[in-house]
Amino acid sequence: MARLNANYYKLAAGYLFPEITRRTKAFLETNPEIKLMKLGIGNTTEPLTATVIEGLHKGVNNLAGIETYTGYGEYHGELPIRTALRSFYKKRNVDIDVEEFFVSDGAKPDSGNIQSIFCTDSRVAVQDPAYPVYVDTNVIAGRSGQFNQDKKLYEDILYMPCTEKNGFIPDPPSEKMDLIYLCSPNNPTGAVATKEQLKLFVDYAISNQAVIIFDAAYSAFIRDPDLPRSIYEVEGAKKCAIEINSFSKSAGFTGVRLGWTIVPFELAIENVKPGDVHKFWMRRQSTFFNGPSNIIQEGGVAALSDKGWKECQELVNYYMKNARIILEGLSRMGLTVYGGTNGPYVWLKTPNNMTSWEFFDKLLYETHVVGTPGSGFGPSGEGFFRLSAFGHSEDIQQAVKSIQDNLRL
Amino acid sequence: MARLNANYYKLAAGYLFPEITRRTKAFLETNPEIKLMKLGIGNTTEPLTATVIEGLHKGVNNLAGIETYTGYGEYHGELPIRTALRSFYKKRNVDIDVEEFFVSDGAKPDSGNIQSIFCTDSRVAVQDPAYPVYVDTNVIAGRSGQFNQDKKLYEDILYMPCTEKNGFIPDPPSEKMDLIYLCSPNNPTGAVATKEQLKLFVDYAISNQAVIIFDAAYSAFIRDPDLPRSIYEVEGAKKCAIEINSFSKSAGFTGVRLGWTIVPFELAIENVKPGDVHKFWMRRQSTFFNGPSNIIQEGGVAALSDKGWKECQELVNYYMKNARIILEGLSRMGLTVYGGTNGPYVWLKTPNNMTSWEFFDKLLYETHVVGTPGSGFGPSGEGFFRLSAFGHSEDIQQAVKSIQDNLRL
Repeated sequence: MARLNANYYKLAAGYLFPEITRRTKAFLETNPEIKLMKLGIGNTTEPLTATVIEGLHKGVNNLAGIETYTGYGEYHGELPIRTALRSFYKKRNVDIDVEEFFVSDGAKPDSGNIQSIFCTDSRVAVQDPAYPVYVDTNVIAGRSGQFNQDKKLYEDILYMPCTEKNGFIPDPPSEKMDLIYLCSPNNPTGAVATKEQLKLFVDYAISNQAVIIFDAAYSAFIRDPDLPRSIYEVEGAKKCAIEINSFSKSAGFTGVRLGWTIVPFELAIENVKPGDVHKFWMRRQSTFFNGPSNIIQEGGVAALSDKGWKECQELVNYYMKNARIILEGLSRMGLTVYGGTNGPYVWLKTPNNMTSWEFFDKLLYETHVVGTPGSGFGPSGEGFFRLSAFGHSEDIQQAVKSIQDNLRL
Repeated sequence: MARLNANYYKLAAGYLFPEITRRTKAFLETNPEIKLMKLGIGNTTEPLTATVIEGLHKGVNNLAGIETYTGYGEYHGELPIRTALRSFYKKRNVDIDVEEFFVSDGAKPDSGNIQSIFCTDSRVAVQDPAYPVYVDTNVIAGRSGQFNQDKKLYEDILYMPCTEKNGFIPDPPSEKMDLIYLCSPNNPTGAVATKEQLKLFVDYAISNQAVIIFDAAYSAFIRDPDLPRSIYEVEGAKKCAIEINSFSKSAGFTGVRLGWTIVPFELAIENVKPGDVHKFWMRRQSTFFNGPSNIIQEGGVAALSDKGWKECQELVNYYMKNARIILEGLSRMGLTVYGGTNGPYVWLKTPNNMTSWEFFDKLLYETHVVGTPGSGFGPSGEGFFRLSAFGHSEDIQQAVKSIQDNLRL
């Protein structure tokens, strides 16, 4: 008799975004005439740039000719895109071998699947709040206990609180952990770790033989030249860190699907031969994945070209202007806001000690703006609220104006 | 201290195709002047059709305009492609709801990941020989014992021998199994199960509360109108079977990446609410995957249009002509060959009781043709050899001629 993976039953309350959809739908059923303004999901809205479009058309045209047609490619992406990525990192003085890149269909699949090459009883630490995929995939893999309804967390997962007090960047844990998920610039708080802060984690990981899974999906949004865009800007990180990144937010590829993961050859853990972590991930990808789309890879190569990247930076600037509009608009109302200067998310402290979901409903019903409740990202997100800078500028302005005009504080 | 998933260490001898690459490279190092003819990996070689190319360009152009740009889409694909798939099945009188389709980046990821929604101690049965992904992903998930070097199989996995005697379609197992992988038209044997043969498995699955994972990736290659192209042509199959299919071989999307999986709402197992298998797969996809590429989906919709599918059928005919060339060319030499009439693979019995790898080397060194050793697909593949019909027709003809002229029998 077949049975389902019982770990799925542990997953609490469903994924955050479906619940937002449910409440939004309920609102629209009773208020069908109202047009909602969405600052919720971090979804790109602006068209791809000219150079990227050209690259993608080239990718399509390649497949129309017998000389340029290609079938199955390399499991970790073709050499041109891995070479372009190598050059991209070189600009930040980070030296990554072309064979250390694993190009994929996105940062989400990679950050979800990476845990599978580690043993089931690995002890997992996450920033709290965090992108739900880190926790959910480890729950499904059996690395957690039950969801504790009082504490709003899974037993046996270590939550590292990101609070106003620590500037939303936690210190390394005092316990010995095996896998540590870090995201900087952070989703949802918008906080960015300095080199010194990352160095603490790198030192911790090396001395505890832990592996850091570093999600850098928002690195293109960093404006401050001193902040690290890659964990490999920190000495020793190649010995202990896997980095995941994406074209989704920098190039507008949320629906196009392209990302990459770096597993350094140097990454070594006790009792495991150097290079074995790299080899295991290659084995995982070659068994469960058939390489990123050849068409989309051409788009990625175009995005990483000098001209393409300049255009992508303009896209990023566009969204960062939105972030400033949100930040300034809400501060002016006396609201407490964080993030939004080196990352596309504004992390708002809910007024009057409201819970995140109370504020969600208040914002929805009073201002017709949809955001994301901070508590959906972990218990320390309670009392906070994420506003996303992704959207058409005029819509963002309208949403901020509606909050200013209609939110009853 | 982080540790790796020890199940990876069980994986025997690496994936089949890397070993072929290794031996081929070794040959070329001592014979650099020789041009090899590849009938090994089932990789498409012919350009995409005009309608599909047009669809893909449209997909790219959509992303260039602010009105047509799209970001994140549905985790199981947009409605147009799911509607097109529904119509596609309707032509075979198979009624699938648009919500039962999960469009993905290919049949390989789906056939690899589907096991993860079932519990770790599920008992797995595979056809022997079989596409290595079914076994390898279950080994990695911990459902097997060690690899038995004498028997050339993993302990605790049930291998269902596909032999000359049973026409390469086995009977259902006599033991109670939980997950049963079936592939028809079969890779590697080219055999196609009749409705009656599939009905035996459906009846078995229903009475044992087992789930059939039916890989129909080669269904477009079936010429005989009476053979089932979908397991849902068999009564009762929706109660017990998940079907996986792909645009890879029918539309030339091996490098483009698009496939789909059907999890019927009706699919039910004891102790599990009806619809829960469907819900679990949706949860898996929404947690680990971000939907198939919006650009590629447009290519899929174009392929499924009347004009597009007609063109794709011509592509399929092209490869099936190759299959006939191989079949006829080798029969004429007195070799025993199977498959190749309703699927793109020819399954050759090695002459003189040679092992599959002995014949691989012989074929490589005497005729400069690369094929795939049957033993790489499972112990019952020993003494057989897979030749793929994917390739330019002139190359296939040349390869067959070289075998006829140079193979010393």
